[in-house]
Amino acid sequence: MTESPTYSDVVAAAERIGSEVHRTPLLTSRLVDSETGARVFFKAENLQRAGSFKIRGALNALSLLDADQRAAGVVAYSSGNHAQAIALAAAILKIPVVVVMPTDAPATKLAATQAYGASVITYDRYTEDRERIGAELAEDKGMALIPPYDHPHVIAGQGTAVKELLEDTGPLDMVFVPLGGGGLLSGSLLSTKALAPDCAVYGVEPEAGDDGRRSLRTGTIVHIDTPVTIADGTQTQHLGEHTFPIIKRDVEDIVTAADTELVEAMALFAARMKIVVEPSGCLGLAALLGTAVRDPGAVAGRRIGVVISGGNVDLGRMAQLLASRSR
Amino acid sequence: MTESPTYSDVVAAAERIGSEVHRTPLLTSRLVDSETGARVFFKAENLQRAGSFKIRGALNALSLLDADQRAAGVVAYSSGNHAQAIALAAAILKIPVVVVMPTDAPATKLAATQAYGASVITYDRYTEDRERIGAELAEDKGMALIPPYDHPHVIAGQGTAVKELLEDTGPLDMVFVPLGGGGLLSGSLLSTKALAPDCAVYGVEPEAGDDGRRSLRTGTIVHIDTPVTIADGTQTQHLGEHTFPIIKRDVEDIVTAADTELVEAMALFAARMKIVVEPSGCLGLAALLGTAVRDPGAVAGRRIGVVISGGNVDLGRMAQLLASRSR
Repeated sequence: MTESPTYSDVVAAAERIGSEVHRTPLLTSRLVDSETGARVFFKAENLQRAGSFKIRGALNALSLLDADQRAAGVVAYSSGNHAQAIALAAAILKIPVVVVMPTDAPATKLAATQAYGASVITYDRYTEDRERIGAELAEDKGMALIPPYDHPHVIAGQGTAVKELLEDTGPLDMVFVPLGGGGLLSGSLLSTKALAPDCAVYGVEPEAGDDGRRSLRTGTIVHIDTPVTIADGTQTQHLGEHTFPIIKRDVEDIVTAADTELVEAMALFAARMKIVVEPSGCLGLAALLGTAVRDPGAVAGRRIGVVISGGNVDLGRMAQLLASRSR
Repeated sequence: MTESPTYSDVVAAAERIGSEVHRTPLLTSRLVDSETGARVFFKAENLQRAGSFKIRGALNALSLLDADQRAAGVVAYSSGNHAQAIALAAAILKIPVVVVMPTDAPATKLAATQAYGASVITYDRYTEDRERIGAELAEDKGMALIPPYDHPHVIAGQGTAVKELLEDTGPLDMVFVPLGGGGLLSGSLLSTKALAPDCAVYGVEPEAGDDGRRSLRTGTIVHIDTPVTIADGTQTQHLGEHTFPIIKRDVEDIVTAADTELVEAMALFAARMKIVVEPSGCLGLAALLGTAVRDPGAVAGRRIGVVISGGNVDLGRMAQLLASRSR
């Protein structure tokens, strides 16, 4: 359980979960290609089951539990998407599950998690420590704790998204991946370095929570207060013991996107590409468009992948965000 | 040009346009399957180029023009999606184009049509006759008039969407198709009767504009005033001379959906399936859900296709519609 995952773990995960997760479509946009001068391929994990890539890691991790652990059940803490994913994975595998969620998580995420049959316990994300709450629950009830990102089996599962992307597109020059705790990014790095070794992978985190970038610069995991950003799926306080070594070894760089840029990307996704993307899912496109403005030569003529991590946003909240744009 | 199109015309259209149009993804929804008891496959033409299925017919029709006609250019009249499609198809084939659009067409559709390089002329859809305006323009300038639905080459092109659907799903028991002037429905019938002869195809039109249903009942094309409905893509006044005979011969039935049902379907698409669908594009799902409530046995256990015709809706307008729901 403490060994570092490799691409062969991603391949095994893909076989293990393939029948239960969607092979999500690749999408393209004439507008994005025209604005960047690049050929851009979007991996639409917002169209994944439970609305985000998280089901990949959750289902892989739960599938690898032994019979005793399955009988005792599992506990998970999450800002939302991991919660839904664990709840759905547990429902698929018929494992009891308790999910610890922040009180201010989007209502859609709370409701969806409960609809999958999970028990939900809420906490205040600005004053309480979800990791401690989760650990205590696990100890009290003998349940297995499945963390949202810092687990080899979760990382291997998340890597299957970019594995599919590269299988469908062939080699790419660059890939942009949203970054919270690093589960998706580290898994994406395993797949990219195996399938397209020359491809530069960029992690993209919200500007208000640039602990990942600072960790990469300093070489050690930087801890921050819960960042205040609309990107609720990436409001993590630090990278993980399992995710950081992979990121440090293989990532090209970690860049950031401002909340206003996320809203612009969200509007482009909805108006032009006809898809609903949550703020965290907009990080990759926002970073690509920002790079294209600041340094057009960096992206022009390149073949670029962008991972859309999820689409779980309240429609009322989405309408507010879109209405907030300066016109 | 006056012969009735057949499935071999659809096959030829698919070969002709295949390299320029997207093979749009099939989407599924656990919620929709659970609410209907059916296995439902959505053909997501909202993710098509220019945001709707219309590019299929437009590109097929323009590709079949001879050199003289291409040089003289084309004129089209449309409530929106056909306009964008003709504009894009003309841009692809480098043909000059004039588009006649209603003054109250969604701003996104007007802007997108102009962005493709088309000249746009507007008219009042409640007091002026777009067919006469289009015909006069065609006569004055020697341009070829490409109607939005009533043309064998347009019908054959539109049929490629359900051809792809059935190739990807295998035989289905039922298919629900939005119905305005009948281009998509008649093309869908050609493909379905060839690929899945036992499949029952239902046309779905807005409740306020049920001329199609009345035409089917009476056996002759019923003309109505422009219906007042949020489904702006299907605000047609009558079926066509080319589309009606195919519909009359092969359709299982024509049903309707109320505007309130379209808004509910739009909300489900956005909140649960993470896609933006315009009101007309919601007709199929609305009819399916309505049928499941009124006559559960009709759909339970069936394999059902639903064509999502397009996604071109102003985001502000979409927010208004979603906010209008009773809670």
